[in-house]
Amino acid sequence: MPRASKTSSDRKIRYAVVGLGHIAQVAVLPAFAHAENSELTALVSSDSEKLEKLGKRYKVTSRYSYEQFEDCLHSGGVDAVYIALPNHLHREYTERAARAGIHVLCEKPLAVTEEDCESMIRVAEENGVKLMVAYRLHFEEANLKAIDLVQQGRLGEMRLFDSVFTMQVKPGDIRLGPRELGGGTLYDIGVYCINAVRNLYGAEPMEVVAFSANNGDPRFQKCEETTSAILRFPGRERLASFTCSFGAADVSSYRVVGTEGELVMDPAYEYAGELKQRLTVKGRTRERTFPKRDQFAPELVSFSECILSGAAPEPSGWEGLADVRVIRALYRSADSGQPVSLEPFTKDQRPTLEQEIRQPPVKEPQLVNTEAPSE
Amino acid sequence: MPRASKTSSDRKIRYAVVGLGHIAQVAVLPAFAHAENSELTALVSSDSEKLEKLGKRYKVTSRYSYEQFEDCLHSGGVDAVYIALPNHLHREYTERAARAGIHVLCEKPLAVTEEDCESMIRVAEENGVKLMVAYRLHFEEANLKAIDLVQQGRLGEMRLFDSVFTMQVKPGDIRLGPRELGGGTLYDIGVYCINAVRNLYGAEPMEVVAFSANNGDPRFQKCEETTSAILRFPGRERLASFTCSFGAADVSSYRVVGTEGELVMDPAYEYAGELKQRLTVKGRTRERTFPKRDQFAPELVSFSECILSGAAPEPSGWEGLADVRVIRALYRSADSGQPVSLEPFTKDQRPTLEQEIRQPPVKEPQLVNTEAPSE
Repeated sequence: MPRASKTSSDRKIRYAVVGLGHIAQVAVLPAFAHAENSELTALVSSDSEKLEKLGKRYKVTSRYSYEQFEDCLHSGGVDAVYIALPNHLHREYTERAARAGIHVLCEKPLAVTEEDCESMIRVAEENGVKLMVAYRLHFEEANLKAIDLVQQGRLGEMRLFDSVFTMQVKPGDIRLGPRELGGGTLYDIGVYCINAVRNLYGAEPMEVVAFSANNGDPRFQKCEETTSAILRFPGRERLASFTCSFGAADVSSYRVVGTEGELVMDPAYEYAGELKQRLTVKGRTRERTFPKRDQFAPELVSFSECILSGAAPEPSGWEGLADVRVIRALYRSADSGQPVSLEPFTKDQRPTLEQEIRQPPVKEPQLVNTEAPSE
Repeated sequence: MPRASKTSSDRKIRYAVVGLGHIAQVAVLPAFAHAENSELTALVSSDSEKLEKLGKRYKVTSRYSYEQFEDCLHSGGVDAVYIALPNHLHREYTERAARAGIHVLCEKPLAVTEEDCESMIRVAEENGVKLMVAYRLHFEEANLKAIDLVQQGRLGEMRLFDSVFTMQVKPGDIRLGPRELGGGTLYDIGVYCINAVRNLYGAEPMEVVAFSANNGDPRFQKCEETTSAILRFPGRERLASFTCSFGAADVSSYRVVGTEGELVMDPAYEYAGELKQRLTVKGRTRERTFPKRDQFAPELVSFSECILSGAAPEPSGWEGLADVRVIRALYRSADSGQPVSLEPFTKDQRPTLEQEIRQPPVKEPQLVNTEAPSE
């Protein structure tokens, strides 16, 4: 059931958006127009031109450099931060906000290591603030319908998952950085495939293997070009596989095959266009197109609602950790050439259709000192 | 260029079809009606009812049990055999035919082990007979066009291949037998994925890894249910992945993604229906459907032409070996849990559009004491 964006109170949660790169500019800042319970009240960036131009555009007068981040947190004008910083800075800025009593909505991946994630979860708890990971597809109809369909048994018993997520990342983009800074295909796009299969299966992988490859293009001096992975899930044992690449044309697709049918999502992971679903059961195919929507406003709406009502946010920090530990295991496998076993991990809460929130799409605004990551 | 089915001579190559199971009945026997240079002159089976009914249907009076196979070979009425036997019998029957001076067109996979394949190739050579593996897609327009498109560079540089090939195999089917008899997903359907990527890339894999899984269904007591594989190819290093399963609904699909576009074949590997191609380059998509055709008559036409003209058949025994050695490496990996390196292997001859042969589809005939492998 799509929820209205009305919240239980008239109070609005006041956000600082921290980091004004591409995703903040094209998606997060415009989303406030569709999030009635949320208000953009501060901007944090090292780029004074961004601060000025975007501050003017969104009528935000509280503008801070990173050196002034503590001032922002203690200004009294901010209840929550949306962290849209490079991956390796997620932990530091999340924990600083938490220690100042400010709630945190953090971009995916939650952080670079399991230790980072665990620390962020602990610090948020200790300081009584809420932490949510910005998995936009957890509020998106097409993805939630897919989870619902397979969980309802429309494909019979799910037997396999296969996904391809590829793009041509521009030279110099931050995604191409070294792994310790959260660069590489798994942190940026592999995380979508991992998150999708974990929630379609409603289970956590127990063993993984990965191969990485590099075509020698100068873009790929600090991270791999492509990673292919196989994940083994427990119970009535099943496999999942995916390939993600920064050096191939745009593909964003997954397929779940069950004992009685298949569900294809293609495109599966996009936010800048429509999503398409093709369900085939016993030879009969039904196609459905889901229109482009604002996938970021729902995150704000949901997180603000949790803050206002005191509910636990979902996708939680644990959901972020659940993916990061798989990413790390896959990289250990790709590095060592050996399959890697994972410790048991329990995550009971799974996305359901009740989380759906619909908002109209936003128009891409004019960019200030940033560009799209891919061509 | 599609070739006419006319051969350079009026002479017809006379075939014994050895093994009268499902594929022989639905595809091989009816194909002779579309192979002007080929004639069905003998049948070999252990089932006297099959021999009688099919002999009558196709007006073949020379009918043999397996015990009478040597009589068939030395009857003077047979120039070639089409081996449609269980995988573990391919070697024995191929070599017996070769020693009797009879040419061999053998179903895929060529055999169960590399040693088997090498021996078959050697025995055929020593006895001056031709050996071809029945890779029907090597004569099929959709598949050859796909190879041609990617080799022409329509996708830019190919960067990855991903495939899913699944079916629900009926309990008791021979495909579910133990590996030493050539049972298991890789011998039966994985071989299509391996053959596809080897010829799309025009290269041989250097390292592979595989996970197998089993859901505990009673069908899967002697072989695995599902295998997922990753293959690493040399040169400007690239990966390929595929999953095949005997316990999931019908899917037959592959995708090649290049630096500038993607090509999807879905269905990709079928002979009982149309094949579909979707080419997307720089955001523009073109779809094309290839009608159902007789994919078996072209094999007969091509092999007979080679016998008549003295040309070397292609797909050769080496092509069969090239796939079997990958299958074996993947099973070694699945068994050991370790990636497996392959020795360098050279295969210069690749399928091209010149191999295309078009023949109209056949109607499925009434089956005699056999059934389709899947539901």
